Amino acid sequence: MSQKAVAVAGATGVVGRQMLHVLEQRNFPVKSLRLLASERSKGKTLTFRGEEIPVEVLTPESFAGCDIALFSAGGGTSKRFAPEAAKRGCVVIDNSSAWRMDPEVPLVVPEVNADRIKTHKGIIANPNCSTIQMVVVLKPLHDAATIRRVVVSTYQAVSGAGSAALEEMYLQTRAVLNHETTFPCNSFPHRIAFNCIPQIPGSDAFTSNGYTSEEMKMVNETKKIMGDSSIAVTATTVRVPVHTGHSESVNVETAKKLTAEEARELLRNAPGVVVIDDPANQQYPLAIHAHGKFDTFVGRIREDVSHPLALDMWIVSDNLLKGAALNAVQIAELL
Amino acid sequence: MSQKAVAVAGATGVVGRQMLHVLEQRNFPVKSLRLLASERSKGKTLTFRGEEIPVEVLTPESFAGCDIALFSAGGGTSKRFAPEAAKRGCVVIDNSSAWRMDPEVPLVVPEVNADRIKTHKGIIANPNCSTIQMVVVLKPLHDAATIRRVVVSTYQAVSGAGSAALEEMYLQTRAVLNHETTFPCNSFPHRIAFNCIPQIPGSDAFTSNGYTSEEMKMVNETKKIMGDSSIAVTATTVRVPVHTGHSESVNVETAKKLTAEEARELLRNAPGVVVIDDPANQQYPLAIHAHGKFDTFVGRIREDVSHPLALDMWIVSDNLLKGAALNAVQIAELL
Repeated sequence: MSQKAVAVAGATGVVGRQMLHVLEQRNFPVKSLRLLASERSKGKTLTFRGEEIPVEVLTPESFAGCDIALFSAGGGTSKRFAPEAAKRGCVVIDNSSAWRMDPEVPLVVPEVNADRIKTHKGIIANPNCSTIQMVVVLKPLHDAATIRRVVVSTYQAVSGAGSAALEEMYLQTRAVLNHETTFPCNSFPHRIAFNCIPQIPGSDAFTSNGYTSEEMKMVNETKKIMGDSSIAVTATTVRVPVHTGHSESVNVETAKKLTAEEARELLRNAPGVVVIDDPANQQYPLAIHAHGKFDTFVGRIREDVSHPLALDMWIVSDNLLKGAALNAVQIAELL
Repeated sequence: MSQKAVAVAGATGVVGRQMLHVLEQRNFPVKSLRLLASERSKGKTLTFRGEEIPVEVLTPESFAGCDIALFSAGGGTSKRFAPEAAKRGCVVIDNSSAWRMDPEVPLVVPEVNADRIKTHKGIIANPNCSTIQMVVVLKPLHDAATIRRVVVSTYQAVSGAGSAALEEMYLQTRAVLNHETTFPCNSFPHRIAFNCIPQIPGSDAFTSNGYTSEEMKMVNETKKIMGDSSIAVTATTVRVPVHTGHSESVNVETAKKLTAEEARELLRNAPGVVVIDDPANQQYPLAIHAHGKFDTFVGRIREDVSHPLALDMWIVSDNLLKGAALNAVQIAELL
């Protein structure tokens, strides 16, 4: 791969920092690196390969001379600046939801639909974190047995809401442990410490059908990434008091019968997937074990006692890595 | 109701203490009260209606002269002592799983199948906590539209594992906050602080079909309580770092179409159920709000975009109250 001039927009955020980490870890051929953020981060520096790099204020001109821009700066920033970057010949890999459902923009998980990358017109969208880890597991099952319907409930980590949210969870947790009744609650609609919130906050308004936008992302992005609009999906997305690592309880109905062992065998051979499924020895995927790992972990695979053509399973991955930064860098590697 | 001689077996446990609390709260006509526990609790006292009552060591003779015994002392104790109590003319309401699937023993949730009580032969079983709160909500939907299939994923609180487990969660949480790497881990197969464990520990061995026994309780007890073995259920039961209050993401498929608003209307009129479903104002059931309440709360009710005859919903209740102590006392009230 030839050396690339890379820009990271939203470099100081939780995902932005992970992007730098993944570029280092995977020895991405970085010729030059520009770190871009809002006015607020002016004067900061970040370390990349041992070098202190200043954070610059993001402007349309930031992308002049860049080959690839990794964006993780929120939907508004992506909507405004991604076309500016593309106009200057820089390919944008965007982690926000701004472009995902645009029919002109490929939505890519390399293990699932890498071939879509070549259709890009300057912008490639990185899917929602909860969706990425699910489709990596669904793809080999779909290829073998044609998925009809998915019922998923998520257990999503707080780091997906950013560093202020993490800080808030810890402040709330200390307050509860100390029997204090006041604590900050700005990143979440309700207390997250020792609680589960059936709404992923942030851009997450409820839609007219009663689903949250996070839930409808899982419904719609799954169809687009898998390239099959006939896959029916329903999702309930829930924030839980976990630092990093999204867990998912997934029920998968297929057209053709798959035994649990057939599914395990398919998944053992699937790229990016690790099967941990030895319940007798209490081995199954856990958020605390997935934190910091590149793989997606699946276990608790069993034949659904309520349906002859369904399987239940438990899927866990690092929401900042495969769910965001890693997937974006994998796309960059394919460019 | 005439005054009753009541015994509580397992009085010093988390659920036992809640039973005393509920007997007080509901002004149960207690003529006399015996508090029973293992040798370990000898010498302890507990307060009931302002009076200090000594804890006695449980023996078969403990039940002589008692009318009603509330058991929450584990399956082994129930298996051994419930028949001894029944033999002495004392009606046992047992919170363990020992008798639940015995065809001779009614398994009762008063809002669902109160009529089963009269068939008892000395022992009445109190269902599993996760099942109780689900069937209270399912019953009116089943009566109106005939439930075909339920796919449930749980978010279960730590208090269901007892007071040592709660203590351990808090010790682990403090250790993580203080960046310590060693902490106690006896009540759970893995760290529960800032994690989700897809196995409810305790008696919870995995069964040969890959389900945990907690999951199979939800499958089998639902059929028995609802009195309809044709209701297909699959469950994934997960422990989350919450003090008290089980949350459940439930997908319900019915034979007859129910709109979300029809379901809400049925549930608004259902005994023991409170509908909290105003997502635009971020109102939905939460574990921290259900803690200490007698009701079962339901919200996030919506028509499933993946199936024309299914609904998604979010059900929350206090696992120690409706999930255990309250339901047992409600059964006693009906005797």
